Amino acid sequence: MPELSPVLEAIDRDFDNSLDRLFELLRIKSISTDPAFKADCRTAAEWLAKDLKSIGFDAGVRDTEGHPMVVGHHDGPSPDAPHVLFYGHYDVQPVDPLSLWHDDPFDPAVKEVNGVRVITGRGSSDDKGQLMTFVEACRAYKAAHGAMPCRITVLFEGEEESGSPSLHPFLEANADELKADFAMVCDTGMWDAETPAITTGLRGLVGEEITIHAADRDLHSGVYGGAAANPIRILAKILADMHDETGRVTIPGFYDGVEETPEQIKQSWNKLGMTAEKFLGEIGLSIPSGETGRSVLELVWARPTAEFNGISGGYEGDGFKTVIASKASAKVSFRLVHKQDPEKIRAAFRAFVEARLPADCRVEFQKHGSGPAIQLAFDSPMVTSAKSALSDEWGKPAQVIAMGGSIPIVGDFQSKLGMDSLLVGFGLDDDRIHSPNEKYNISSFHKGQRSWARILDAIAS
Amino acid sequence: MPELSPVLEAIDRDFDNSLDRLFELLRIKSISTDPAFKADCRTAAEWLAKDLKSIGFDAGVRDTEGHPMVVGHHDGPSPDAPHVLFYGHYDVQPVDPLSLWHDDPFDPAVKEVNGVRVITGRGSSDDKGQLMTFVEACRAYKAAHGAMPCRITVLFEGEEESGSPSLHPFLEANADELKADFAMVCDTGMWDAETPAITTGLRGLVGEEITIHAADRDLHSGVYGGAAANPIRILAKILADMHDETGRVTIPGFYDGVEETPEQIKQSWNKLGMTAEKFLGEIGLSIPSGETGRSVLELVWARPTAEFNGISGGYEGDGFKTVIASKASAKVSFRLVHKQDPEKIRAAFRAFVEARLPADCRVEFQKHGSGPAIQLAFDSPMVTSAKSALSDEWGKPAQVIAMGGSIPIVGDFQSKLGMDSLLVGFGLDDDRIHSPNEKYNISSFHKGQRSWARILDAIAS
Repeated sequence: MPELSPVLEAIDRDFDNSLDRLFELLRIKSISTDPAFKADCRTAAEWLAKDLKSIGFDAGVRDTEGHPMVVGHHDGPSPDAPHVLFYGHYDVQPVDPLSLWHDDPFDPAVKEVNGVRVITGRGSSDDKGQLMTFVEACRAYKAAHGAMPCRITVLFEGEEESGSPSLHPFLEANADELKADFAMVCDTGMWDAETPAITTGLRGLVGEEITIHAADRDLHSGVYGGAAANPIRILAKILADMHDETGRVTIPGFYDGVEETPEQIKQSWNKLGMTAEKFLGEIGLSIPSGETGRSVLELVWARPTAEFNGISGGYEGDGFKTVIASKASAKVSFRLVHKQDPEKIRAAFRAFVEARLPADCRVEFQKHGSGPAIQLAFDSPMVTSAKSALSDEWGKPAQVIAMGGSIPIVGDFQSKLGMDSLLVGFGLDDDRIHSPNEKYNISSFHKGQRSWARILDAIAS
Repeated sequence: MPELSPVLEAIDRDFDNSLDRLFELLRIKSISTDPAFKADCRTAAEWLAKDLKSIGFDAGVRDTEGHPMVVGHHDGPSPDAPHVLFYGHYDVQPVDPLSLWHDDPFDPAVKEVNGVRVITGRGSSDDKGQLMTFVEACRAYKAAHGAMPCRITVLFEGEEESGSPSLHPFLEANADELKADFAMVCDTGMWDAETPAITTGLRGLVGEEITIHAADRDLHSGVYGGAAANPIRILAKILADMHDETGRVTIPGFYDGVEETPEQIKQSWNKLGMTAEKFLGEIGLSIPSGETGRSVLELVWARPTAEFNGISGGYEGDGFKTVIASKASAKVSFRLVHKQDPEKIRAAFRAFVEARLPADCRVEFQKHGSGPAIQLAFDSPMVTSAKSALSDEWGKPAQVIAMGGSIPIVGDFQSKLGMDSLLVGFGLDDDRIHSPNEKYNISSFHKGQRSWARILDAIAS
């Protein structure tokens, strides 16, 4: 098998060029959730296909009902070499409120923030920076040895930030082409800026949007106030009813399928030394808002939530308007754990809302994406190899952790393609993904590339 | 004293011209609450001053810290003739959501809606159409007799829809100039399209805006959900707590100063034949949302309310964003009755909010306008004269009613200038004031002018 050190040297030598390539990709405004950026999403897909071709991948842009996929294949050193499927997404979150960004979200730069060199811009961490660590590792392998260490298939989607509506049909239609020995997913984080991590638990997600309709027009609150239903009041009551005083979600059946985390896992998490003060202190808070009596790591890694992601109704402009709105709406999402069933929870939520609706009002539901929670083995050979490779690169033992966010693709790879995933990424909690001023550490981008080279090497050997 | 019939004839003869004048005024986008329309507000004031001058008023635009006032004076037939102060406002409500308007809100027209000829456009009823009924009555008096029947002072403000911040200082600074025997305020409605009314009760108002601040940035709900405080959840809980299951407001001390409506008044209201089905049916609703066990007329005329006029937070755009917002805000207003003290209620509301705030979050309060409720005599000579004049014009007895909305000026006239007000107007419940597709019936505009001519005549005699 080929040597590793020329690959790592190629990465180091070519690092400035790899930054330039990432910047080109970051400049493309591929916001998938907003139809105004549809063409930009395709541009990002085309950019990636072209880049993969330049490394020798048989790659192309593949149309879907929504934003396109990018698929690329590269042969391994022999037909029986291991075959991995690498997944990432080229779409990014919206950037509002734009006024809170210190730099243009789509004009990336390297700058020093609190003594750390970082790449700024929307997508720098989630997920363009992350996916390019893998692409650059492949490029370096090719440069050093003219070949890949194993057979590699790449799948990049453009709808991860908007619920992946096209992913299921695409996986089903192309199952034979995409099936590999296992998947690698680079949409996760490190434990901290020095400590690499492999993620084996992921919360699931259900997204819902509800709109409460009351009167058939906006009303003057003087003329009708006290008599006419106010949809903001109805909505506030429904949302307020969703948690009890201990922070538990009150929707009937919500906790079906939720398991208590085994004591030894809780203990290993406790040993990580994370406190509520430390976890929340970084964002200006101090008091956990979830179920009382549980650690913050347990709350974000192993407990389900009901969150309100947006609310809107009535007069929201400057000044005051004594109006009773005709409607009010909220975006609600649930993070799921263990065996919670997304569609059962969606149905239970809808019944919960309908039970609280005055008979002369109506509710409109809009379905957003969903995916179950994932629990992967803590000790598969794949995890063991990757742990060792990551520990070599970072000089510290890699941690096996869980993650609060959802990566629905991991469930799809299990259920539709029968493969487990290795979840490795180099994001950090302070990367401000989904927020203004997203960044990705230069060390994540550089050592991330080197980490993938080491992981590919470990897999091939 | 001059004859009435030439005045009424002048009104009828000049009616088309009076419509043209109103349209000119309606085309001016005098939205006082939005700073973008500051210049338009001044344009409306200047238009009115010019029009008053054309009738012989000594009129002008008077600067304030905010939008200007218009003041005009006209001599009566003798120095000891009665002196009335007529009040109206030239500012209008915002027009959003613009997409719901069937016609341009600032390009007025006459059209037939459900068999009734109406004037369309923002301000057609509230309050440009209403105030012009009085101006046109004055013009007709002047045209018919070359003189007014009594001494008339006119005061038009431009901040009624945004809490009248400049009104108090203006009344105080110009008390001697503005003091009259009594005031006439034309910002109220009829009982129905055929039945004129005099309003003797008005609810007061307190406006507040609250913003709940949690984390110092927007957060990813996967990373932080379950641990970090969600300001939308905190806000929803606070708003939901403000009413109990019977629709009563739960803020401590809120009902201090609220009196039970005397039984004979309730009976006279019951005789008007208004039902919940009828009152709410016009706006697509059927179930009263206020305190249980009270009639809809009592709810809107004689009971206080807490209303939510706007709510905002997190991601409100198309699609979905799994964000936990850093802040969420609501516009809240209270309608007051009888002797409720606006500033005590503001303070009690703020304490109520603060008591429900997690220790690591903070709240920001923004004060909007306020004014106490008003109760005028049912049987003063002024009311008796006006009743008779209105009954003559409309051919039906005028009703003495209350009103759910606030007209803070009426309280100011009492407290600052020591005068009672006569509240007569020709608006209708279906005028959609503060809503898209505001209109004013042609009959309101025409017979409104004739009604004022009759009232002025009755006062002078």
